[in-house]
Amino acid sequence: MTRLVRIAAAQMGPTQRADARPAVLARMIALLEQAAGRGAEFVVFPELAFTTFFPRWLLDPAELDGFFEPAMPNPAVQPLFDRARALGVGFYVGYAELTAEGQRFNSAITVGPDGAILAKYRKVHLPGSVEPRPGERFQQLEKRYFEYGDLGFPAFYGAEGWGRPVMGMLICNDRRWPEAWRVYGLQGVELMVMGYNSAAYDPNGGNSESPARRVFHSTLSVQANAYMNATWAVAAAKAGVEDGAGLIGGSCIVDPNGVVVAAAQGEGDEVLVASCDLDACRQGKEKMFNFAAHRRPEHYRRIIDQVGAELPR
Amino acid sequence: MTRLVRIAAAQMGPTQRADARPAVLARMIALLEQAAGRGAEFVVFPELAFTTFFPRWLLDPAELDGFFEPAMPNPAVQPLFDRARALGVGFYVGYAELTAEGQRFNSAITVGPDGAILAKYRKVHLPGSVEPRPGERFQQLEKRYFEYGDLGFPAFYGAEGWGRPVMGMLICNDRRWPEAWRVYGLQGVELMVMGYNSAAYDPNGGNSESPARRVFHSTLSVQANAYMNATWAVAAAKAGVEDGAGLIGGSCIVDPNGVVVAAAQGEGDEVLVASCDLDACRQGKEKMFNFAAHRRPEHYRRIIDQVGAELPR
Repeated sequence: MTRLVRIAAAQMGPTQRADARPAVLARMIALLEQAAGRGAEFVVFPELAFTTFFPRWLLDPAELDGFFEPAMPNPAVQPLFDRARALGVGFYVGYAELTAEGQRFNSAITVGPDGAILAKYRKVHLPGSVEPRPGERFQQLEKRYFEYGDLGFPAFYGAEGWGRPVMGMLICNDRRWPEAWRVYGLQGVELMVMGYNSAAYDPNGGNSESPARRVFHSTLSVQANAYMNATWAVAAAKAGVEDGAGLIGGSCIVDPNGVVVAAAQGEGDEVLVASCDLDACRQGKEKMFNFAAHRRPEHYRRIIDQVGAELPR
Repeated sequence: MTRLVRIAAAQMGPTQRADARPAVLARMIALLEQAAGRGAEFVVFPELAFTTFFPRWLLDPAELDGFFEPAMPNPAVQPLFDRARALGVGFYVGYAELTAEGQRFNSAITVGPDGAILAKYRKVHLPGSVEPRPGERFQQLEKRYFEYGDLGFPAFYGAEGWGRPVMGMLICNDRRWPEAWRVYGLQGVELMVMGYNSAAYDPNGGNSESPARRVFHSTLSVQANAYMNATWAVAAAKAGVEDGAGLIGGSCIVDPNGVVVAAAQGEGDEVLVASCDLDACRQGKEKMFNFAAHRRPEHYRRIIDQVGAELPR
């Protein structure tokens, strides 16, 4: 049995704070249709794909609430679910989750080709701060607006039609944390999917790394962690300038050797597609990264016993 | 105070099984002098630098013993220590360690500019097998000839003259294991040093990855783990063809952004030098990889609770 699945990354250009939901949905459906037209069976959308990256703003509660989804799906996103099911295409999408109990998470779901939600993930590695930085126009308030993900890193099986890959989800900053990848690797992950919104520069005008350096860091993280866990990886950006704040593109599809097999060329709406042989994960998992044969957890205890760094005496 | 240290990677070309120790020492001293002549204060030599990569052979005990160092230093390596001290240059060197109790390890030491041993490391991630693979000319018997390192990943301070960096040592295969890097990262490492002997192809003639792909994997591992732990990293290869078995080159010096600042051009004896600003680690440690602010160890337990992969149910 060939375990070949054709996967798309649907990079999205910027979504402005004032953009209406139907216009965003129309763009996402257009990307979905473009991906399906190129044979994709599964499409990866960005983090917080339905809205602008609102944690950059200190918002009053009414506007803030408007960025959250009280259920998934819900009427404001239903057209995407309907079109995907009609096409028989599954997808990953990031969104701001408001639970019935009033909890808020930066979440993502994977939806099967039949429209059923296969799994949910809540972002563990929230960057930014709780309190706004005084005097700055642009903030990064993820630690204010979201609780830390409480579901861990739960691997799950993708659809039978995709070859039933062991899958894992990450969101944005998570992709830079090898612990997150390894916890999935220890569940045999074959397909890691993630969306992101990553600043291209300091929007407040401070000295900072170049956009090119930031794309390099993003891609390097995905490549190396894919290699070290012998998994396919798909990373989809929201890119371009949102209300004066730039986001990197750099969406990519990476094979289990860490090789980029498809990469975004621009910073707008753009679909990348690759046919992914899930069995290409086997060589790494059975040889170089045969965890059972080679890992030595007795020497890894600091990874859970410590949070921050502790210098040698 | 500027914390600038000038560091060399001393890549070594092949050492044949029949090569006599004085000839190897003479090459190492020539590399040391070349590095010192280019201003290096610290030189990184390869894994098992004094000998051929002998774990490729199933050896009788007498020949095997000849590859091990019963003490460090000892008369057979003393000229390197003497020349380094005379030049005021420190070094990392890998060697096969035989303890007074008869234990055998794949070890490395860091020697200060005064000739004193600052720290020892014993390789944790031993690749290969205990039993020889029947019918094959070339073996990988590290798991037979060495015990697993029993010192963990102990960070230590480099010399005052180098800016007193927090240092960590790895050996070869360790560099592909993010757990090893993170345990050092959690001790605030600023300078990771490592030597390696990595096969360029399957010497028994099987289908395998190309030498170029293997250099890519090596460099990718060093770049990403340096970035994700905000540390300088220096990796020195033994390279070229040893008695019919090829080893990759690809020695490199990588900055805390994961950028290669110096890379070997060939597969022979070759010195790379870079001036390393230790304070360039600070941005990563204080922002993106501020561990105290962003790590969530409560979700990392599988990393120590499991050795091998366990598939989801």
